[in-house]
Amino acid sequence: MANNKKNDAITARDVDFAKWYTDVCRKAELMDYSGVKGFIIYRPYGYAMWEQIQKHMDKKFKELGHENVYMPMLIPQSLLQKEADHVEGFAPECAVVTKGGLDDLEENLVIRPTSETLFCEHYAKIVNSYRDLPKLYNQWCSVVRWEKTTRPFLRGSEFLWQEGHTIHATEEEARKETLQMLEVYRSTAQDLLAIPMVTGRKTESEKFAGAEETYTMEALMHDGKALQSGTSHYFGQGFAKAFDVKFLNKDNKQEYVYQTSWGASTRLLGAIIMVHGDDNGLVLPPRVAPIQVMIVPVMQHKEGVLDKAYELEAQLKAAGLRVKVDASDKTPGYKFADAEMRGIPVRLEIGPKDIEKGQCVIAKRLDGSKETYALDDDLGSKIHTLLDQIHDEMYAKALKFRDENIRTAHTYDEFKEILETKAGYIRMMWCEDDACEAKIKEDTGATSRCIKEDEEPFGDVCPICGKPAKKVVYFAKAY
Amino acid sequence: MANNKKNDAITARDVDFAKWYTDVCRKAELMDYSGVKGFIIYRPYGYAMWEQIQKHMDKKFKELGHENVYMPMLIPQSLLQKEADHVEGFAPECAVVTKGGLDDLEENLVIRPTSETLFCEHYAKIVNSYRDLPKLYNQWCSVVRWEKTTRPFLRGSEFLWQEGHTIHATEEEARKETLQMLEVYRSTAQDLLAIPMVTGRKTESEKFAGAEETYTMEALMHDGKALQSGTSHYFGQGFAKAFDVKFLNKDNKQEYVYQTSWGASTRLLGAIIMVHGDDNGLVLPPRVAPIQVMIVPVMQHKEGVLDKAYELEAQLKAAGLRVKVDASDKTPGYKFADAEMRGIPVRLEIGPKDIEKGQCVIAKRLDGSKETYALDDDLGSKIHTLLDQIHDEMYAKALKFRDENIRTAHTYDEFKEILETKAGYIRMMWCEDDACEAKIKEDTGATSRCIKEDEEPFGDVCPICGKPAKKVVYFAKAY
Repeated sequence: MANNKKNDAITARDVDFAKWYTDVCRKAELMDYSGVKGFIIYRPYGYAMWEQIQKHMDKKFKELGHENVYMPMLIPQSLLQKEADHVEGFAPECAVVTKGGLDDLEENLVIRPTSETLFCEHYAKIVNSYRDLPKLYNQWCSVVRWEKTTRPFLRGSEFLWQEGHTIHATEEEARKETLQMLEVYRSTAQDLLAIPMVTGRKTESEKFAGAEETYTMEALMHDGKALQSGTSHYFGQGFAKAFDVKFLNKDNKQEYVYQTSWGASTRLLGAIIMVHGDDNGLVLPPRVAPIQVMIVPVMQHKEGVLDKAYELEAQLKAAGLRVKVDASDKTPGYKFADAEMRGIPVRLEIGPKDIEKGQCVIAKRLDGSKETYALDDDLGSKIHTLLDQIHDEMYAKALKFRDENIRTAHTYDEFKEILETKAGYIRMMWCEDDACEAKIKEDTGATSRCIKEDEEPFGDVCPICGKPAKKVVYFAKAY
Repeated sequence: MANNKKNDAITARDVDFAKWYTDVCRKAELMDYSGVKGFIIYRPYGYAMWEQIQKHMDKKFKELGHENVYMPMLIPQSLLQKEADHVEGFAPECAVVTKGGLDDLEENLVIRPTSETLFCEHYAKIVNSYRDLPKLYNQWCSVVRWEKTTRPFLRGSEFLWQEGHTIHATEEEARKETLQMLEVYRSTAQDLLAIPMVTGRKTESEKFAGAEETYTMEALMHDGKALQSGTSHYFGQGFAKAFDVKFLNKDNKQEYVYQTSWGASTRLLGAIIMVHGDDNGLVLPPRVAPIQVMIVPVMQHKEGVLDKAYELEAQLKAAGLRVKVDASDKTPGYKFADAEMRGIPVRLEIGPKDIEKGQCVIAKRLDGSKETYALDDDLGSKIHTLLDQIHDEMYAKALKFRDENIRTAHTYDEFKEILETKAGYIRMMWCEDDACEAKIKEDTGATSRCIKEDEEPFGDVCPICGKPAKKVVYFAKAY
């Protein structure tokens, strides 16, 4: 059967997962490399997915009262250096502009690796009183962080993201915002991308440069590695003090603001690929798929077939579906395999016999199953229902995979054995000492992904050092 | 009357138009300056207008078959140098990255001043046959051009824009695309921004670096200066030859593609401000206004007033209007002046007496006129109708101003006299010699804005040199 035909050009996942990943990225035309290492081209099919993510998240941000702004791309080096931890974290990754026009600059400028410093400088100018608070700003942009090892969408010297930066009159409100935005990310992953996340707090050594607390959501890839997919930071008053962002509180006293920032990036595209894809290529969650239904005319040279295909396209478009007709001069078998490789959730086949019978055949990318649908006025809403079903099935499948790959280690030997044989997440009790994290990382390559404060301790000793341990921590190898 | 109160902090237009402009930009919180000259902060109220423009244009682009992509922010210097005219035009304006991470780069990288070179390099890789054509790509991003003299929105070292880059199998198709996109810009200006444009072709000396032909739309500001507000370029095969972008045509022969590019930027915000604004501040065209209706409760401490205001807000939001309640602790008079300064098209006043009578008062920002509206289910649709009326009135007013400020010069003396006393556009017959343009520019500061090939010649001699002239050209002082 054509739709089960293996796509020869894509490496099988179990043969070489890294190769499979880049094969899919390029063959499905999600991206291409540019002449500068680590700077990729987001091709239409990849960018369209990012646009769906943007649309979904931007709406949520605005519903919660956030406003979009745009800050300059360049940051004076002196400004970046105002918060000590922050500059220490980012200085080694900066791209530096030293010439503007034909002249050497008086002060070097850094292409934003993130924009905390710019937001702080601006906030210090525009905030005077508690009446001016909160400020709930967000921006969509690209940032540059010089990376040595790069992979499409996962780690690049330039990537697209949104960065929210908010300031508040109270610690309580800022902490609430931090967790609220983590939940926006988590629910976006679930509702739009059909990806179940693990959420929690980062350890001291893994948190953001300058943050008091960093919360993260982590997705589990098919190869058992974790992917940090969105973070939300509580800054306390650290940046506010460094940048002198003060306000007159209700008691008429000067106080520093309480701050958050939160970001999610085109890494999410990498998560979609590696959570859902299979050996035939992409498998796209319907709500983020640029094309949800590919109509493939069978025997398209026969009179009426192409007309019917376009008529169906118009009908389904009017029903709010993202739909396309593949009217190229390729064979149906080729078109089936191509739609499959691109991960299009639903393929609609229509040929002379179907038209005669007033029906069409609909095939699901997820499992290859086929069903006959009547060509009536309800076709659009039936496909909507089918797409929702597919979304739920994809989420359930990914959730099962994730849950099967969370394992508990009571001893370090157990930890290492799990890591070597099965990968996935490893739950371990932890003493909260950086040294134990560092040892695990050095010995095994696994890192702490997050502290699960919502999980009951299942022991009271850290298996690494033997000291008392109160926290459940998830470890994993990660991208 | 409060709504006629002059806003003291804004300089009158006739006293100092440049000062008026920056006063409005800052007081209405459209932008703020950053620590780097020429790099501005787009504040929420300014950015929200850009978002409206993006939404409107992006929809049109997609309806015409264009797809969005994202190209890298950095261009290797060697790539930028491949097309001779292009590099000559842009090299003096480039911001150059010489360090990445902690190392000096082997090759300097330029922050994109525009992305023709990147698109060409990519197209060369992905296009093989006429079946791959056309490629109709667009990207939304910011670009950097080092400018010595900068003004918010009008000329900055960084600005936001979209750049469309298309390639075609035939010259005819590419030429059609060039004009089609100019028309998209022109109609966007008319339908969304209520700005009448003058459109035409740029002279050789004013065209884009590397283009065969540049088409432009020009808006006329209140001070009689023109503002280039969007351009569309036909490249022929120039870039294709420099970057080797070839395809196998239907006759099975290798041929270079025919190319276009077109861009519109946040300059359009400058046009909105300077075309429509008055001495009290902004006057925003309703379709681009971030807030279309500001509800001002009168005697808001009285029971039921604020509730009614929020109830109306919900009703009007549900009717698809962008609406806000000003529930701050300021006086109604202050709120009226503030809404006026921010250019909000319609103010809705609601107080205890209005509620009693089941009515509200609606004031138009454009002319200060007030009318009473019944508080019934039709209020939303009535305000929609009113906003459409306001749009039409604003367009008609701007069109009248534009048309009154197009004057014809038969002699150079006449030209200079018009320029000194009245400004605006000056129509002149032109010999097509760069030298005459250059002389005008040197003598008067006015530049050719565009060749009006759709206008009948009204003479046959160039007033500058006395040689034969066939082209009607519009000159003006310009931003």
